[in-house]
Amino acid sequence: MSKTLRIIPLGGVGEIGKNMTALEYRDDLDANDAILIIDAGMMFPEAHMLGVDLVIPDIAYLLENRAKVLGIVITHGHEDHIGALPYILPRLNVPLYATRLTAGLIQVKLKLNKVRDANIEVIPDRAAFQLGPFLVETFHVSHSIPDGVGVAVTTPIGTVVHSGDFKLDPNPVDGAMTDFAKLAELGARGVLALLSDSTNADSPGHTPSEHVIADTFARVFALAEGRIIIATFASNISRIQQALDAAARFNRKVCIVGRSMQDNVRMAVELGYLNADPQQFIRADEAEHITSSQVVIVCTGGQGEPTSALAKMANREHKQVTLRPGDTIILSASAIPGNEEMINKTLNNLFREGATVYYDRFLDVHVSGHASQEEQKWMINLVRPKFFIPVHGEYRHLVMHARLAQELGYRRENIFIVENGDVVELDDHTRGRVLRQEVSATDVLVDGIGIGDIGNVVLRDRHHLAQDGFFIAVLGINMRTGEIVFGPEIETRGFVYEPEAESLLEGAKQVIRQATAASAHDMGLSATLKQELSAYLYKTTRRRPMVIPVVTEL
Amino acid sequence: MSKTLRIIPLGGVGEIGKNMTALEYRDDLDANDAILIIDAGMMFPEAHMLGVDLVIPDIAYLLENRAKVLGIVITHGHEDHIGALPYILPRLNVPLYATRLTAGLIQVKLKLNKVRDANIEVIPDRAAFQLGPFLVETFHVSHSIPDGVGVAVTTPIGTVVHSGDFKLDPNPVDGAMTDFAKLAELGARGVLALLSDSTNADSPGHTPSEHVIADTFARVFALAEGRIIIATFASNISRIQQALDAAARFNRKVCIVGRSMQDNVRMAVELGYLNADPQQFIRADEAEHITSSQVVIVCTGGQGEPTSALAKMANREHKQVTLRPGDTIILSASAIPGNEEMINKTLNNLFREGATVYYDRFLDVHVSGHASQEEQKWMINLVRPKFFIPVHGEYRHLVMHARLAQELGYRRENIFIVENGDVVELDDHTRGRVLRQEVSATDVLVDGIGIGDIGNVVLRDRHHLAQDGFFIAVLGINMRTGEIVFGPEIETRGFVYEPEAESLLEGAKQVIRQATAASAHDMGLSATLKQELSAYLYKTTRRRPMVIPVVTEL
Repeated sequence: MSKTLRIIPLGGVGEIGKNMTALEYRDDLDANDAILIIDAGMMFPEAHMLGVDLVIPDIAYLLENRAKVLGIVITHGHEDHIGALPYILPRLNVPLYATRLTAGLIQVKLKLNKVRDANIEVIPDRAAFQLGPFLVETFHVSHSIPDGVGVAVTTPIGTVVHSGDFKLDPNPVDGAMTDFAKLAELGARGVLALLSDSTNADSPGHTPSEHVIADTFARVFALAEGRIIIATFASNISRIQQALDAAARFNRKVCIVGRSMQDNVRMAVELGYLNADPQQFIRADEAEHITSSQVVIVCTGGQGEPTSALAKMANREHKQVTLRPGDTIILSASAIPGNEEMINKTLNNLFREGATVYYDRFLDVHVSGHASQEEQKWMINLVRPKFFIPVHGEYRHLVMHARLAQELGYRRENIFIVENGDVVELDDHTRGRVLRQEVSATDVLVDGIGIGDIGNVVLRDRHHLAQDGFFIAVLGINMRTGEIVFGPEIETRGFVYEPEAESLLEGAKQVIRQATAASAHDMGLSATLKQELSAYLYKTTRRRPMVIPVVTEL
Repeated sequence: MSKTLRIIPLGGVGEIGKNMTALEYRDDLDANDAILIIDAGMMFPEAHMLGVDLVIPDIAYLLENRAKVLGIVITHGHEDHIGALPYILPRLNVPLYATRLTAGLIQVKLKLNKVRDANIEVIPDRAAFQLGPFLVETFHVSHSIPDGVGVAVTTPIGTVVHSGDFKLDPNPVDGAMTDFAKLAELGARGVLALLSDSTNADSPGHTPSEHVIADTFARVFALAEGRIIIATFASNISRIQQALDAAARFNRKVCIVGRSMQDNVRMAVELGYLNADPQQFIRADEAEHITSSQVVIVCTGGQGEPTSALAKMANREHKQVTLRPGDTIILSASAIPGNEEMINKTLNNLFREGATVYYDRFLDVHVSGHASQEEQKWMINLVRPKFFIPVHGEYRHLVMHARLAQELGYRRENIFIVENGDVVELDDHTRGRVLRQEVSATDVLVDGIGIGDIGNVVLRDRHHLAQDGFFIAVLGINMRTGEIVFGPEIETRGFVYEPEAESLLEGAKQVIRQATAASAHDMGLSATLKQELSAYLYKTTRRRPMVIPVVTEL
C-alpha cells in the first residue's frame, strides 16, 4: 500500500506571522486520509496593505477537504499562532487542542470577537493522544509566554516534529525549561522531518535568558522615585510576571491598565500562570491616591501603537493615566520591523512629558523569545531528523537556518526551503520532494467585516489614491449634437489644495471642453478625456492623480 | 547700545533631517542687522506624508528678511544638509560657503536639478572670513564623508559654535581628525553658546572608528569566491574609499553602478578626495567579461529603496547587473527608522537569488558617522560654552544630550531644549531666553513640481483614501419635480472589489433613490445623500470610504 505524508505550510513560512501548517496523511484507502493543523495565527498588515486591519492564512484547501480535517493543535497563545481563530472557526469548525493557558487566551479572544461554541480540548504540556492516523505528542518549550509546546506527530510513515516557538532558556521565569528529555526520546525513536523556528537564524550565539530582565528591572526600580510604567505586549505573561516580582520586591502596588491586558492577567492569575498576591493589584483610580513611589503601571504600547495605552498617555489622551514629571517608563519590547516610526514618535512624546524613559537602545529592557543560532543547532542535534524544514521566518531566516543544518552535516537535498503553498511530500520509502505552489496560500486580508474580499486591484487603487488622490470630471452631453449640456463639474481630493488651484481647475475645464468639441460625438469620449486630462495635470503638477471622467448622454 | 543674537532653528531640531539654523544679529542701528544661515537640508517624508517626495525647511522668515541674509555656510555634503538647496536657492539666491568636496557635491546636485547661477565660494576646512557683523571660522570634523566642518560665528556679543555632524574618530579613513586644537582655542577664547549634534545621544560610550569596516571588508573579501557587491549611500565617500582599498588589496576591479554614485565618485576622484588608481575602475559591460573573483560592484541601496541599484538587482530589474549564485553582497548601512520593511524585502529577494548576504544583524558592516555620549561630552568639555543647545536629533535625543551636559555640571537653566521655530535670544549681558514658536518653521512638502502647496487637508484626504477609498454617486434631478432624471451612477475605487459587490452597489442606489424621493426637493439633498450613503456603507462593510454625491439639477 502506498502512503504519503504531505507537510503544507499555509502561513508563516517566508514571513513572520500568521503561522499555520497542515499535515495531510494519504494512502490507497481514502477512508484513512486525514489532515491535522498546527496553529492558526494572524499577521499585522505590511506597509503596502493600505487600510487592511489584519492578515490571516488562506484556508481554501482546508475547506475543500473539510471532511478530512481532524483538528487544530495550538502551540501557544501569541497572536501569530491564535489570532486567525475568530475568523476561521466559524467556517472550519473543528476541535482545538491547547494547553491550559493557551486555551484560556483563546477563550478570551473568541469571547471578544463574539465567536461561540468553540470546541477546545485542554491538554497537558506533555500530552499524547490519537487523532485518526496521527499520534499527537506535545512537549514543553520555553518562550516569552508560559505553557508553550512543540508537537510531534507520528503517522504510519514516520514522525514529524514541529518545534513551536522556542528558546533554550536555562533560567525561564516560570521555571519550565524546554523538554530536552522528550526531544532526545523523539530523536532516539527516529524522526522523519523537523520543522523548526527560524526567527533568529541571523543571530549568532545564544538568546539571553528572560531572567536578565529581572536585573534590568531591579536597576530601574532602585533609581525611580516616582511611578514606574512598564509597557509590553498584553500576551507577554512572562514579562508581566517579572514586573509583578520587581514590584513586590520594591513594595509597589501594580495597576494593570487596558482591557486586553486586564483580561489576560485575570485569566492567567486564575489559572495559576501568574504568581501574585491579589493584594498587590490596585485599580487606576486607587493608584491616583497613593504615593507615586508605591505604584507600578503595566500596560500595552511596546510597539508605540496609536491605540495602545502608552501611546495614549504620551499623547495626553489616556482617560485614566496622566503622565507627570518624575514618572519612569520602561519600553520593554523591541521593534517589530515597520513599527520603528510609531515607537520613535511615542518615545519623543514621552520625553516631552518630562518622563525618564528606558528603551532598548541603551538598556537591556527586552530579550527575544526565540532561539539564536547555537540553540537552533541544539534542536536539530537532539531531534536528528532525516529531513529538515526551516519554518517561522522570512526567506532569509529560512536560508540561514538551512545553512546551520548544513554546518551540522546535513546535505542540501535533505533540507527543504519552502514557502507558503508549497507541499513537502514524504513517502513510505523515506523519500521527500517539494511540489511548488501546489496549494492556494494567499494573504487573506481582513478589512472591516470583509474577509478576503480585498485583493490586489483594491490595494493598487488605494496606493494610487494615497500618492496623488483623484480627479473626477462630471459632464452631460447632448446625445444628438455632442454638445455639453451640463458641467464639466470637477471633484478632486488628495491632489491639490483646491482653494489655491483655481487656475488649474479652470485649465482642466478648458481641456475637457476642447476634447469634447473635437471628439465629433464618437464613442471614445471618456477614454479621450481621461488621456488628455491626465496629460494636462501631469504637465502642470508632475503628479498623476486617478482621473475618472463621468460622461452622461442626455 | 543694546545688541541681541538670535539663534533660530528652522529644521533638524526635534527631528533627524532637513537641517537649517539661522543666526540673526540685531542692534539699535538697523543697518547692522544681519542673518547667517548654516545648512539647507532635506528630509525623507514620514510615513503619514503620503505621496510626498521630500520635505524641506520653511524659509518664510528668511524671505521676509531677505535683505539681511548674508549667506549660507554648508557644513558637509550630505542630503540632510544640502538637499534643500535646489528648491530654496531660486527663491533665496545668496552666496554659499563650502569646502571643496562639499561644493563639488552641491554642484552635482544643482546641475541635476537644473539650477544655474549659484554663487558658491570654496573655503578651506580651517577658514576665517568676515560677513557683515559675523566673523565666520570653520574647523574640520570627522564624519562619514570627508571635508566636513563645524562653524564658529563670532558676533559683537559673543561666539556661537555649531559642531556640524561629527564624531571623534581616532582613525578616520581620510586621516583627518576632528580639529581638537581649534575647538580648544575657541573654548579658551570663550564661547557663548554651543549647538551640538545629538543624533546618538542615546548611545553610551564611543562610536567605533570608521576603520573597523576595513577589517569587516577584509574578512568578507577573503572568503568571497564570486563577485562582491557593496551597497551604501551615494554620498558615503568614506565607505566607498574603503571598498576601493579592499578591492586594491584583493586585486579586484571596481565597477561603480548608478548615476548618483558615479557622479559623486568622478567628482571626488577629480578633487582628490577619493584615492584610487584610475586603472582600478571598470564599466559594467567590462565587468561582465572578467572573472567574477576579480570584480567588486559598488552601488546604492543600503536602505532597500525600490529605486536603488541593489533593490533593482534583487528584483531582477537591473539593466546592467544580473545576480548569480556565488555573488557576495554587503549591505553596508544601518536602517533609517521607517525603512526596515524595505530593507527586509530587499534582503529576502537577495537570498532568493542565491547570494551570500552580510548585513548588520550579524556582522559589523556599518558604523555611525555621529558621536556617541562620551564623544558628545568631549565636545562640550573642549568648547566650554556658557549656554548649551542640543541640535540635530529627535526630541528624545535632545533631552538625553541635555542630561549629559547636566552630568558635566551645566545647570538646567543654561541649557535650551528647543524645536524648529523657537528662537533662542542672547543679549549683551550674556543672558539668554527662549521665545517659543516665534518664527514659522513648518514642514514644507515637495510633491512633483509643487513646493509647499500640499498641507494637512490634502494629506488627510490621501490618508482617508488610502484606508477605504472613495464612493461617488452622480445623479441628475429635475429642478421642478425633484425627480431623478439620470443616474444614480456610482464610481468607487479602493473600497470594494466591484465585480463581487453588485448587491452592495444596488443597495446603495436604492438608498439614493429613497433619500431623493424623501428629500422633497430641498437644498440639502447632497448632505442627506452623503449621510445616508455613509451609514449604509458602514453598516454593510464596516468601512468608511470618502462619500461624495454629485447632484446636477436640470
